Amino acid sequence: MKKLINSPDTVVTDALRGLAAAHPSLEVDVENRVISLAGGPRQGKVGLVSGGGSGHEPLHGGYVGYGMLDAAAPGEVYTSPVPDQILLATQRADAGAGVLHIVKNYTGDVLNFRMAAELAEDEDIRVVSVVTNDDAAVEDSTYTAGRRGVGGTVFVEKIAGAAAEGGADLDAVAAVATRVNERTRSFAIALHAGTVPAAGKPGFALEENEVELGVGIHGEPGRERGSMAPMNELIAYALDVIHADLPVSGNLLVMLNGQGATPLIELYGAFAEATAWIEGHGATVARSLVGNYITSLDQSGFSVTLTQLDDELLRLWDAPVSTPALRWGR
Amino acid sequence: MKKLINSPDTVVTDALRGLAAAHPSLEVDVENRVISLAGGPRQGKVGLVSGGGSGHEPLHGGYVGYGMLDAAAPGEVYTSPVPDQILLATQRADAGAGVLHIVKNYTGDVLNFRMAAELAEDEDIRVVSVVTNDDAAVEDSTYTAGRRGVGGTVFVEKIAGAAAEGGADLDAVAAVATRVNERTRSFAIALHAGTVPAAGKPGFALEENEVELGVGIHGEPGRERGSMAPMNELIAYALDVIHADLPVSGNLLVMLNGQGATPLIELYGAFAEATAWIEGHGATVARSLVGNYITSLDQSGFSVTLTQLDDELLRLWDAPVSTPALRWGR
Repeated sequence: MKKLINSPDTVVTDALRGLAAAHPSLEVDVENRVISLAGGPRQGKVGLVSGGGSGHEPLHGGYVGYGMLDAAAPGEVYTSPVPDQILLATQRADAGAGVLHIVKNYTGDVLNFRMAAELAEDEDIRVVSVVTNDDAAVEDSTYTAGRRGVGGTVFVEKIAGAAAEGGADLDAVAAVATRVNERTRSFAIALHAGTVPAAGKPGFALEENEVELGVGIHGEPGRERGSMAPMNELIAYALDVIHADLPVSGNLLVMLNGQGATPLIELYGAFAEATAWIEGHGATVARSLVGNYITSLDQSGFSVTLTQLDDELLRLWDAPVSTPALRWGR
Repeated sequence: MKKLINSPDTVVTDALRGLAAAHPSLEVDVENRVISLAGGPRQGKVGLVSGGGSGHEPLHGGYVGYGMLDAAAPGEVYTSPVPDQILLATQRADAGAGVLHIVKNYTGDVLNFRMAAELAEDEDIRVVSVVTNDDAAVEDSTYTAGRRGVGGTVFVEKIAGAAAEGGADLDAVAAVATRVNERTRSFAIALHAGTVPAAGKPGFALEENEVELGVGIHGEPGRERGSMAPMNELIAYALDVIHADLPVSGNLLVMLNGQGATPLIELYGAFAEATAWIEGHGATVARSLVGNYITSLDQSGFSVTLTQLDDELLRLWDAPVSTPALRWGR
């Protein structure tokens, strides 16, 4: 499996050097692996920190900026960041009003963010953690007790970031983050497995007529190995699972996300089908993202994420954001 | 080769329906295959039209919006749009000040845009065409007499779009587009071939230790079949070719572009190496894009595009733009 890399050992470091060179709005501490806002956070604003294994770009470093995250801690590929690293990100995000940790529900991430939160509390930085677990595919999984945190994390980061930018205090920002997570469900289907550079071969094997229904963002198994089918059937399968878990209704925020190797022309086609399915179920696509927002290296396939908006969440979604990967309104 | 599609026959139509659903700022005429600005262009502004085969998304439909294109005409996958379709796009972009056609140098595109321009002139719409040919890889190619138009087309569309938005007349907008093209060079390397849906198998075969040096955006052959190498060597090969053709100096606009299936983490690593190479040759990366801006379906690999900026081009690059795929400044 050919990769555009120098060596598996330098993939994350090389990418951080590139992120630094491409985005002067970011301060990238390559040695300590912390991405934060150049100039630091605005005094008195609640800080937002996320992080997790690398390989899901633009998540999380691409979401550091005005109206979203203050700092991100990227681990090795598909590997949790370490507590000291998360502590450093927390310190850089701290502007005197406490820090929200947004943590995808994987055992290592939850543990290491918890340790970092305790270290931060020792330094009188108040930390509240919100764990995302929006994947409707399976209850427990390879790296997870309970549901996995996946695409909904992007929505939590955006909406909580807008609340913090608007002056909400730590408890209020945490409450809105929790609310987004509770109103969000995701489901993913893989067509071809991605390859972790250090492994050098695809993480799992799919035959030419097979797909993985409910795949995780690290290639974890889903509900079942299914048969390859036309795109509209795959979309309907994903949305049926979500709908059975949290009935689809009202105004929705929808993400049709690629896993890294799916062409944008296919993602737009899939979004057309998802929109038709949603409207056919009496709900409305109020806002949307179509593209690669939370990836799995060069895995091919898609995920769909739905959030039931209310007026406040819609307003916060529409608020200005300025990050490398999401930008509007200023 | 599994594809997230309903049928090869509906790939473009499905994607256009998705584009319409995702972006209310666009008017998408699915039947006639024209993407234009909802509400039409501002009266008195020079209109900008581009187009070409589909499969290169977000090019061109993703670049329709304030400060860039007024309309785009997408053909079938890797197939030129037809003259009537380009004429319709031209009519929709016309706001009384003439229309610029931005055409990538492929025989079919050049011919069909020329016919459309003649039809438009019959309707008293003045059209000037600028043909992009920034690919430093080869002189002639599968679908091309002369050099191919590739990544530089994105820069031409952005910078000419800013000139038009700023009130320049048709000749001035065409002149700045021509100047960008002349000061721009690109080079691409493929690791794995992409698959056209109707073909169902990769467009060319690369062994596990091979790369295509100088590949075109339709998988056309480049200079030679080379050996797979570490990323820094591939980047240096690409930049050496560009440098030999147009010496790298001064302030550069740089795009490190994925071909559709290359993870963003790898593109950032490649951009770090490109930046180091450029700085090592005494030039400066003044502005940059890293990501998927002109793709080749699910081909994996990268292209690098360099433009020698001057003060005017830098100012036009920095001017506000608001399209699905490029957005900043408002």
